[in-house]
Amino acid sequence: MTKKEIQAYYQKKKILITGGLGFLGSNLAHALTNTGSCVTLLDPLFPEYGGNRFNVSEIEDRVGVILEDIRNEKLMESLVREHEIIFHIAGQTSHIDSLKDPFLDLDINCRGTLILLEAVRKFNPKAKIIYAGTRAQYGKILRSPVSEQDSMQPVDIYGVNKQAGEGYLWVYRDVHGLSCVSLRINNTYGPRHQMKQANYGILNWFIRLAVEGKPIPIYGDGNQLRDYNYVDDVTEAFLLAGAVPATVGEAFNLGSGHPVPFYQMAETIVKIVGKGELKKIPWPEERKKIEVGSYVADFSKFSKAAGWQPEITLEDGIARTVTFYEKYKEHYW
Amino acid sequence: MTKKEIQAYYQKKKILITGGLGFLGSNLAHALTNTGSCVTLLDPLFPEYGGNRFNVSEIEDRVGVILEDIRNEKLMESLVREHEIIFHIAGQTSHIDSLKDPFLDLDINCRGTLILLEAVRKFNPKAKIIYAGTRAQYGKILRSPVSEQDSMQPVDIYGVNKQAGEGYLWVYRDVHGLSCVSLRINNTYGPRHQMKQANYGILNWFIRLAVEGKPIPIYGDGNQLRDYNYVDDVTEAFLLAGAVPATVGEAFNLGSGHPVPFYQMAETIVKIVGKGELKKIPWPEERKKIEVGSYVADFSKFSKAAGWQPEITLEDGIARTVTFYEKYKEHYW
Repeated sequence: MTKKEIQAYYQKKKILITGGLGFLGSNLAHALTNTGSCVTLLDPLFPEYGGNRFNVSEIEDRVGVILEDIRNEKLMESLVREHEIIFHIAGQTSHIDSLKDPFLDLDINCRGTLILLEAVRKFNPKAKIIYAGTRAQYGKILRSPVSEQDSMQPVDIYGVNKQAGEGYLWVYRDVHGLSCVSLRINNTYGPRHQMKQANYGILNWFIRLAVEGKPIPIYGDGNQLRDYNYVDDVTEAFLLAGAVPATVGEAFNLGSGHPVPFYQMAETIVKIVGKGELKKIPWPEERKKIEVGSYVADFSKFSKAAGWQPEITLEDGIARTVTFYEKYKEHYW
Repeated sequence: MTKKEIQAYYQKKKILITGGLGFLGSNLAHALTNTGSCVTLLDPLFPEYGGNRFNVSEIEDRVGVILEDIRNEKLMESLVREHEIIFHIAGQTSHIDSLKDPFLDLDINCRGTLILLEAVRKFNPKAKIIYAGTRAQYGKILRSPVSEQDSMQPVDIYGVNKQAGEGYLWVYRDVHGLSCVSLRINNTYGPRHQMKQANYGILNWFIRLAVEGKPIPIYGDGNQLRDYNYVDDVTEAFLLAGAVPATVGEAFNLGSGHPVPFYQMAETIVKIVGKGELKKIPWPEERKKIEVGSYVADFSKFSKAAGWQPEITLEDGIARTVTFYEKYKEHYW
């Protein structure tokens, strides 16, 4: 689909984004309001999570905002009736927190997803659901690049539960005929990401450290490969996943096509920001246990189905991100 | 391990069986009391489930029984402290019910398993946990026979959640150092199974229909292969999984080595009981959607690790089962 066709597809469509005030959700909201669709954002703004009202300040007059949780069943039942396309992005997304409180992760990522699916099944089975999957579903990397049919051995509770959440999608597809797509997102960075803690979104966190002229910790040799996508490319992928019929019922990897060693990502930040410095330190025990090795995604399936290609280079993406936070620092620090 | 060595291993060991009054749990309890171990059975005796106090009537004076739920966190915390080996067999086990009430399945099979693992992590990290996995984790069968590293595409909520439950085991193994084993059970039948409904354990249900001289429904042509294990062989597998060090940290298939077409299983029952008759009917819609095709297990990994071989033929197992229910019909009908 061309950008014009996507625009036409979304125009006047009623869209729900769960986690709509967070990083990915709010960037997607910006892209959607530009197409002229009617967007509702659902977000409980949990203090420790990525939701931030400022993320939608520029489009506040063009989106509906509901400050609530996906686990509010009655609300979900009424919301799904009103929306044709649902981007299900809400979630607990910290690997480490999922180990500290596995029950909360289970409740949000599994029960929350089931609540959404049950509501759609009962009250709007024609709605299309686009699920934010994750590379964490693969866990330990046994083969590189990773393609969609590769084995799933999640190494943390977050990965297990996101995998279960995606599994529910396929059950609701086959048993109840729902239209579902899963995008297994790799490491995404860019504007509108929370900048208060290192617990999710390490690239954004490193930008903060560099801007503050602080040391940037590299665990071990930092040679593990990572596949970083700038958020606009990921937003574009979600738009395509919602619009292109050939994506329905399938899971797709996203990726950059240009994996880089972890330390090189950090070096690039230092170079662009002009501050900060890399500091190699030993792997902390809790991180080492859930480290999966080099991750490189094979995203040819999604390119073929939807014509998607990431366009923003790591250098360009970091530069744009730095510019954004220099301008809006007060709202994120 | 020889039977003598197993006996010696379990003697005076303190064992907890969740779901201990159910089909598999109570048969395992019989085997364990014969080894001289000290067994506690945890079972809430939910009316619709397989728990039955009569299942342990012969060994009532040699086992502890606690009529409670694995989801009682405080109780689990105190129980796991007292037991060296935990057979985690409790669960919601109906495919169809998992689709009707996915939240209950989630709560028992995921949250319940997490409660157990968290309790063990906190209060008895040296305990060994043997998890009752299931062939339902594989879902749609893409390759036959199925081996442990094959892809997992569960077709019902039960399968997704049992897979997540097993996934938690591996996270707790790698992150917290717990000793876990999963046995992915195929279709198991035999004495002490509930006989009140068709919703789980179809072979046992067909025995009831035959004993009552009723028609035995075969969906479609009934040509799909199934791999039936008599419960004593499965009980033996659990004893080995709990005792043999080489099983720790691994998942294993169980299987019979003699898969048969579904209709042939039913014919064997009619022949042995001397009553009943096969009646071919179209697949009910709800069943058809979750049918996975022929299932044949490759259980060579478990044979190699633990020396396990199933010993009871289908004919012999059915005959023993019929004899049991003829004697104790009043407690199961």
